[in-house]
Amino acid sequence: MKKFRIVAALFLTTLMLAACGNINTTQNTPSTVNKKKLQTTGQAGGDNYQGVIKNGHYQVSKSRGVTNDQDANQFNLKSFENGLLNVSKKQFKPSKYIFQEGQYLSTGTVQDWLGRESKDNPDGLNPADNGKKDPDKRNPMYLQAMEEQDYMTQDGDNLKLSGITIGLGLNSVDYYTKEQYGAQYSTKISDEQVQEQGKAIAAKVLQRLRRTKGVGKDVPVIIALYKQAPDDSLVGGTFFNYSVNDGKSIDAWKNIDQRNAVFPSAGGSASSGTSNDESNFENFKTQVQNFFPNLSGVTAQAQYQDDSLSGMNVTITTQFYSQTEVISLTQYLAQVAPKYLPSGVPIDITVQSTDGVQSFLNRDAGENKFTTHVFGSY
Amino acid sequence: MKKFRIVAALFLTTLMLAACGNINTTQNTPSTVNKKKLQTTGQAGGDNYQGVIKNGHYQVSKSRGVTNDQDANQFNLKSFENGLLNVSKKQFKPSKYIFQEGQYLSTGTVQDWLGRESKDNPDGLNPADNGKKDPDKRNPMYLQAMEEQDYMTQDGDNLKLSGITIGLGLNSVDYYTKEQYGAQYSTKISDEQVQEQGKAIAAKVLQRLRRTKGVGKDVPVIIALYKQAPDDSLVGGTFFNYSVNDGKSIDAWKNIDQRNAVFPSAGGSASSGTSNDESNFENFKTQVQNFFPNLSGVTAQAQYQDDSLSGMNVTITTQFYSQTEVISLTQYLAQVAPKYLPSGVPIDITVQSTDGVQSFLNRDAGENKFTTHVFGSY
Repeated sequence: MKKFRIVAALFLTTLMLAACGNINTTQNTPSTVNKKKLQTTGQAGGDNYQGVIKNGHYQVSKSRGVTNDQDANQFNLKSFENGLLNVSKKQFKPSKYIFQEGQYLSTGTVQDWLGRESKDNPDGLNPADNGKKDPDKRNPMYLQAMEEQDYMTQDGDNLKLSGITIGLGLNSVDYYTKEQYGAQYSTKISDEQVQEQGKAIAAKVLQRLRRTKGVGKDVPVIIALYKQAPDDSLVGGTFFNYSVNDGKSIDAWKNIDQRNAVFPSAGGSASSGTSNDESNFENFKTQVQNFFPNLSGVTAQAQYQDDSLSGMNVTITTQFYSQTEVISLTQYLAQVAPKYLPSGVPIDITVQSTDGVQSFLNRDAGENKFTTHVFGSY
Repeated sequence: MKKFRIVAALFLTTLMLAACGNINTTQNTPSTVNKKKLQTTGQAGGDNYQGVIKNGHYQVSKSRGVTNDQDANQFNLKSFENGLLNVSKKQFKPSKYIFQEGQYLSTGTVQDWLGRESKDNPDGLNPADNGKKDPDKRNPMYLQAMEEQDYMTQDGDNLKLSGITIGLGLNSVDYYTKEQYGAQYSTKISDEQVQEQGKAIAAKVLQRLRRTKGVGKDVPVIIALYKQAPDDSLVGGTFFNYSVNDGKSIDAWKNIDQRNAVFPSAGGSASSGTSNDESNFENFKTQVQNFFPNLSGVTAQAQYQDDSLSGMNVTITTQFYSQTEVISLTQYLAQVAPKYLPSGVPIDITVQSTDGVQSFLNRDAGENKFTTHVFGSY
């Protein structure tokens, strides 16, 4: 494991948001290599991790971009990575741990693991191709995405690896073509299979990770299982299981009860538990669309944890004719949103046109008022 | 003039940001038409105007969309409308006046006025076509855009027109084609001509406005002159003159000393007065680009009032591979921006990728810290 120098003042900087986290090596330590400087990105917002800066550069993931290439639904990507940070926070507190992009699994490794098992690729974690093309007879690709996150703690003047989180993104639908550039077909994968296959893959990943140079035998490794949303979904997938492991084999799995919803829902009638939130949202939508001409869409993503609403992202799409209209709509939203939208959970409202984001409103869980921002230009 | 009913509590709502400004008609006034309800949009931010809502709908401009169609440079559009609000604030204080989108000049009127004078269009404010095609011999179009803003005050239970602001957008370059769908040519218009023509057009506009039904003879009318930026500019134009008029003819013109800059400047060397801001920005840019791989652009718009920097919009464009990178860059920006970017003026920093806005940071004039927001998705 590489060691980076760090001064003891590091954690003071987490308290000073606007202060610069540029932490040079202390000069009184003879072993200091001057060019090796450690900085952190600072914390923006109370419960975010600080990130590792090495020699002035942000330390990007060793497998950077692999997941991105794999995923046709951009919602999955953000949801997977944000969700993985949230799973990590259950075990690695942002006040104590520093976030580092994954440094142990390389692009090549992750690409091999995400592939099918074959003579050329014995490490593939997806089942071998059985040659069948029928949706229900072929072996689908279960594992679609993998992400490593490292969690560091201070160890004297150094940073030490103190935790790893691995997210496994599992397909609920596997898209494939029967010939190159051919029509797209799909194999549906049941929730039971997603869970069973995910757990089996997780066991292999943990074993391999323990053998990886620098990881060590007892550093806590979280493995979190994520069910990817289908390509046509307007919201990303959800995490459903995670396990914190100190040894070589998987310890007990814990449930994550997470559910996403899109408002207005396609069917018109909401699924259980969401109906009240949805009717509130519908009232908000009616109010806003009545207020303003040319609003082409008012939609929302909602997320539920343990059957309670945990957050909402509202998107308002429109063709605006003037900046004064954007300002007025934003002011109006700041008035009606607290009245109609659920309280006690974080809510983002983004107003966008074909020219991009025009304004946005935001309220954190504990606040009453929405803060507003209208994007301007000189 | 149309009258809208309003209760006396209206101005209380300006103090309560999150309170709803829904103001029904009082029931004890016999002349009340129940369907006529007046609301305001509420104020988002201390020095914004409230807008007029009539019968639950936002009251859009009578000449909505005309300016938009006229303008190839989107920067001009936002800059023109925001700037016009700022000119209005010199005379009509947001604490006393309520903003109403222009209700006196219709789309047809504005379209006629923006045209060339001709037999078919005697009201055209641009000079008649002299038939010449040469850039320096033809009569260019001087007037490109026009916007009306109304400023209302409370008059018992009603709203009364108490001010009008007219913005005239004047070309610094007039683009034209010699034949339909032909190549684009351009006529450059000197600053002296922009000013001279603008003032002559303003005199006509004021006379016509005074004759317009509902405007009245003595309501204060501000006319503000704006020089449009060329189509290829990365920042909008600027206001240079305004006049507050109580009667039929133009009173004294006042100067507006406004200048826009783009950083990094094309020439590399900054024009006078900006050099220090530009070198600070260059340091910021170097710092950020060094920190993060794949940052394809770090640019800024800056505006100067009376030769002092009055605000800056920074845009960072990049291809990101993960949400954690967006979070880390945003945290880092919150650290280095206060160190390198000028203090005491409002600054926006927007981080965007091909997928749209990823995060943004903002600091108002009186603040030290940047507030940050990373756009997420479930």
